Amino acid sequence: MMNVDLQQERASATIDSEDFAQWWAGGKTNLEQRRSLESQFFNDPQFDDVIPASCLSYKERYEHSVARGTQFLHKLRQWFSEKQGKNNVCDLNTLQEFRFLLSGPLGTGLFQQSFPLRLHFSMFVSTLLNQGTEEQQRKWLSRAWHMDGIIGTYAQTELGHGSYIRGLETRADYDAEHEEFILNTPNLTAYKWWPGGLGQTANMVVVLGQLYVGEKHCGLQSFLVRIRDEQTHEPILGVDVGDIGPKLGANCVNNGYLGFQNVRIPRDQMLMKNAQVTSDGKFIQSGQPLLLYGTMVFVRVITVRDVMFELLQAGTIATRYSAVRRQSPIEPGKPEPQILDHLTQQAKIFPQLARGVSYRLVADWLWQFYQNVMQTLEKKDSALASDSLAELHAVSCCLKAVATQEASEGIDILRKACGGHGYMASANFDSIYGLATAAYTYEGEYTVLLLQTARFLVRQYVDSLKRKILPGSVTYLRDVSRLVWGKDLVENCVRSLEIASLEQIRLAWQCQKEQRKRGLGVEQSNNLAGRQLVAAATAHAHAFLTRTTVRELRRIVSGLKPSVAGILTQLMELFVLDTFLRQAGQVLRWNSINGRQLRQVEQRFEQLLSKLRPNAVALVDGFDFHDRVLGSTLGAYDGRVYERLMAEARRNPLNQETVNSSFYSHLQPMMRGKL
Amino acid sequence: MMNVDLQQERASATIDSEDFAQWWAGGKTNLEQRRSLESQFFNDPQFDDVIPASCLSYKERYEHSVARGTQFLHKLRQWFSEKQGKNNVCDLNTLQEFRFLLSGPLGTGLFQQSFPLRLHFSMFVSTLLNQGTEEQQRKWLSRAWHMDGIIGTYAQTELGHGSYIRGLETRADYDAEHEEFILNTPNLTAYKWWPGGLGQTANMVVVLGQLYVGEKHCGLQSFLVRIRDEQTHEPILGVDVGDIGPKLGANCVNNGYLGFQNVRIPRDQMLMKNAQVTSDGKFIQSGQPLLLYGTMVFVRVITVRDVMFELLQAGTIATRYSAVRRQSPIEPGKPEPQILDHLTQQAKIFPQLARGVSYRLVADWLWQFYQNVMQTLEKKDSALASDSLAELHAVSCCLKAVATQEASEGIDILRKACGGHGYMASANFDSIYGLATAAYTYEGEYTVLLLQTARFLVRQYVDSLKRKILPGSVTYLRDVSRLVWGKDLVENCVRSLEIASLEQIRLAWQCQKEQRKRGLGVEQSNNLAGRQLVAAATAHAHAFLTRTTVRELRRIVSGLKPSVAGILTQLMELFVLDTFLRQAGQVLRWNSINGRQLRQVEQRFEQLLSKLRPNAVALVDGFDFHDRVLGSTLGAYDGRVYERLMAEARRNPLNQETVNSSFYSHLQPMMRGKL
Repeated sequence: MMNVDLQQERASATIDSEDFAQWWAGGKTNLEQRRSLESQFFNDPQFDDVIPASCLSYKERYEHSVARGTQFLHKLRQWFSEKQGKNNVCDLNTLQEFRFLLSGPLGTGLFQQSFPLRLHFSMFVSTLLNQGTEEQQRKWLSRAWHMDGIIGTYAQTELGHGSYIRGLETRADYDAEHEEFILNTPNLTAYKWWPGGLGQTANMVVVLGQLYVGEKHCGLQSFLVRIRDEQTHEPILGVDVGDIGPKLGANCVNNGYLGFQNVRIPRDQMLMKNAQVTSDGKFIQSGQPLLLYGTMVFVRVITVRDVMFELLQAGTIATRYSAVRRQSPIEPGKPEPQILDHLTQQAKIFPQLARGVSYRLVADWLWQFYQNVMQTLEKKDSALASDSLAELHAVSCCLKAVATQEASEGIDILRKACGGHGYMASANFDSIYGLATAAYTYEGEYTVLLLQTARFLVRQYVDSLKRKILPGSVTYLRDVSRLVWGKDLVENCVRSLEIASLEQIRLAWQCQKEQRKRGLGVEQSNNLAGRQLVAAATAHAHAFLTRTTVRELRRIVSGLKPSVAGILTQLMELFVLDTFLRQAGQVLRWNSINGRQLRQVEQRFEQLLSKLRPNAVALVDGFDFHDRVLGSTLGAYDGRVYERLMAEARRNPLNQETVNSSFYSHLQPMMRGKL
Repeated sequence: MMNVDLQQERASATIDSEDFAQWWAGGKTNLEQRRSLESQFFNDPQFDDVIPASCLSYKERYEHSVARGTQFLHKLRQWFSEKQGKNNVCDLNTLQEFRFLLSGPLGTGLFQQSFPLRLHFSMFVSTLLNQGTEEQQRKWLSRAWHMDGIIGTYAQTELGHGSYIRGLETRADYDAEHEEFILNTPNLTAYKWWPGGLGQTANMVVVLGQLYVGEKHCGLQSFLVRIRDEQTHEPILGVDVGDIGPKLGANCVNNGYLGFQNVRIPRDQMLMKNAQVTSDGKFIQSGQPLLLYGTMVFVRVITVRDVMFELLQAGTIATRYSAVRRQSPIEPGKPEPQILDHLTQQAKIFPQLARGVSYRLVADWLWQFYQNVMQTLEKKDSALASDSLAELHAVSCCLKAVATQEASEGIDILRKACGGHGYMASANFDSIYGLATAAYTYEGEYTVLLLQTARFLVRQYVDSLKRKILPGSVTYLRDVSRLVWGKDLVENCVRSLEIASLEQIRLAWQCQKEQRKRGLGVEQSNNLAGRQLVAAATAHAHAFLTRTTVRELRRIVSGLKPSVAGILTQLMELFVLDTFLRQAGQVLRWNSINGRQLRQVEQRFEQLLSKLRPNAVALVDGFDFHDRVLGSTLGAYDGRVYERLMAEARRNPLNQETVNSSFYSHLQPMMRGKL
């Protein structure tokens, strides 16, 4: 049975969710394929939840996620190899496709807090492919791809060392006599810490460590290390391994710690595509660090898409709940309205939906840009490659930073917009937030990334003063004309964000110069200009996000069905106006905008909220999240919010006995004064 | 052994933590008493943690918190009754004192996610006191106070009804023949939902329900209902009760649901201080709703102090961790610096410390104001009482809303400032955030409260146009002079926040008027002016927080030791400048402030960060949180961050066996292709 309010919402919408869903999925065929795959898994009773995961102990959650994870992989790999046919060998494309399956809606629907076997494919196999020699790949790749005696993960971060990779302490000494490397963890702070699946699951690890040949330090290299016996799974002698413990989210990943005491591996288990140690102990550097670097960028590019997905999961839940929930009369004497009719509620929710759609357009653009740059790299024109990689790096750093920050913030706003019920684990905002906010830190911490982008921006700004040609993402730095407030509100807003960015970059550059004049070195000057540099990169990200959203939508809009085009245009406009209003401090600081103009933006913003209101439910239906993917009592398609909240509560093991044992042991003695 | 960096920080500080701690605690005696009480509990081995709470199942956490909760109460009540001597009877003052013990540092240190028996004192006993007749108090109060066969809680919110109390559906029908009330839960949405301790713990509940005498609806009344048998603890016939399940935080509260099917209670179990039903079914309203209203305000007043406490817990953890953690070289060739030396890190942490100190000063003021208003109420001058209650209501609503919002946001910033390790449950940010963000919603949801304040502000603004005398907290609305940027930066900032508030209130009022002119009713006009009204109340809160902080510090500063006065003055200034900069959009919109003036504020802001840097660790030491209260691997006094992270990980039950059973059942079969 469907909630009547949702029925009503769907009946009165002016857009067709199915049209939207087809565009969103990249076409009808894609949509159908995804739905078919999802139904094969989500309707399979072996993947039903018996006990809410959040009621389990940490150990039970691990065991449950291993059981389900192996069943999932078994079924998925069967499906995948049938699909691939006899081409089921592991190359980069195949791997990429498989990784997307694991981390996409399917993986999310089955593992709301992720699962320990994902890193095997997302990091371990891919590192073998990227850093192993052909010989090494012959030896390991097929076994790894088929998980034949191998479950792997990738260990880089250490307890005391994160963003600054060169500071890693794990050490590999070459022993020429035995043709072996000896791995050691010299300090507590050198313990590997964080790798997914490392705790109790993986038996092999790619370890990043400082290579020493004799006294000579040969930089960071990757080593393939067996850490658990293939037959018994017992840790190898000298290996100290375990789970690092519960976290804010992603509690089923089995993140682990790892220490080595004189653990030996044969010489051919250093991954030698880019650097080699010969049997007699000669170190040779041969590879292209640029391509390696590209792999780091890859994750940031993908992260923008991930958090978009998470933001819209949360947006779907909050929108549906707000159409079902009735609270606080607007008109006296009338029944309590759907809370979605409160303007303040619309102002919390709709900008998040608009932001998600913007991120989608930008992520598509970024993915294409990434592909182009990777092709350039393969052409081995090193100057061009290095330039375009620098731009890709700068763009992906600030987009990853700002998108993870704003998506997490958005998810939190959406949760709070659901009041007390949003606080329930069964609403699932906690898991969604946990994943999104983790991305704020991993693969490049927020502030560290923004400072990297800022360095690029200041360099480009200086180039612009020299009238050099600027890369596409920063050409606006050359256009120094002031804001002219015209008829096109969207253009006014984007332009004023660009001007704010330009001026903020200039200010950051001036701050650096001022510190230098005081006699400070480059680095200390950068440190003291840090706030302005971060502000510059943030301002650039906002200018870039709005400009790209507008441009990308204009590019594709003519190919869309009118109702899809219509709502996307409203969302694009809402995103731009919302960004402008939220950045009012920067915008007003660097542009001359009067009160009447500001009111104009605000009034249009509120008008857009009302325009979106009738289609809000149909829109989120169009994102086409399966109920399992949302994993939420508040967000299911049928809107049976209260029934689901109650049903979920009743499944809690604590509620399976009418009297808990602690009554006899503690409450009763206390009430009788006999404790 | 102490971390050397923290040793160094403490040795080189220019303030004395002990001086600060004495002021913070309200004097030396208070400080010593608190420390002595804490050591009695925290050094008691029965309160040691064996397994990290976050590793337990939800049911285990409940059982653990009941066991510890009863032991804690046993010990605390012994101590308390010795302290009270023969005066150990329950009156409002005694109860208040006892409640502070439960929710203060002692309670926090033992129950990082709260515990199920707190509501008995904080809501159940206090409601008996406030709403019971003398006869009812004679019958129930002493038993309740001594927990003699009674564990109670308070049930108001329902599954489908929160902020709008009049919408509650639980129903009590008077049966004159048997002189009983018959309680019913007519719908699923009428189920009580949320009361702490309700699930498996409480055996009596004060229930808020709609009273019907015959066909006549007599409003919401409170009923004392036994829900579990005193001897067996089995739910009474007709009672459907259980735990609502895991949440984002506060997971040991045993929040419950409750439904009634024809549950009968004797007539004398309606709490009849303010309204009575006679035995023959006459309904008489006699009480003072104002005083009742005062009790609701009380919780909001207290909440500002609670979130201040939580913000500074998080601030202490982040500060100490940032002094221990070394990362990312500032100067090339030098070792990685303490991350607290990065300006961007200081800019994340110090404003939160300043905010906490400001909240403390404001909370003290608010408490005093609350006491004054309560005294006025007792004088029964109803016009004066209603005016001052309206002001108290308006001030406490917006302060509660803004303080919970900004404290939660601050805690999240502080967590993220600790990078990946901040994400670990053992860092304890998750529990702290969970409690703070819950307060965003409970006892008055954020937006609902701001709209209440806004209504008051618009009324005051209209009064100011009529040149009426305004209450103290809004007198600035009459001072319409423009901003004159003078030498006193703090005054410039506060004044520009006040002007922004005034203008924003005016705009909200205009928006309401515009909608009215379009022919809309008052309520729909208010709805459509919602964004502006919320902005007005927020702007007022910022103006009020900064003005009150400055005034309150000036009031007390001459009585302080110079070094304490010095750092408080820096913190006060930082708080004001930070508020100004974070509200730049509003400030620049409504004031004419040029770029040079803005730079001046920014430069002073950064200067204050450097001034605070050498005393940061000494300052957080001065808040004097016991390690148990912080409950954090990252924040302990000794700074042994890495040792504690590792030790906590090793205590995880998952790490107690070298090979987990799921290897045999799933991983091995999978690797052998035999799943």
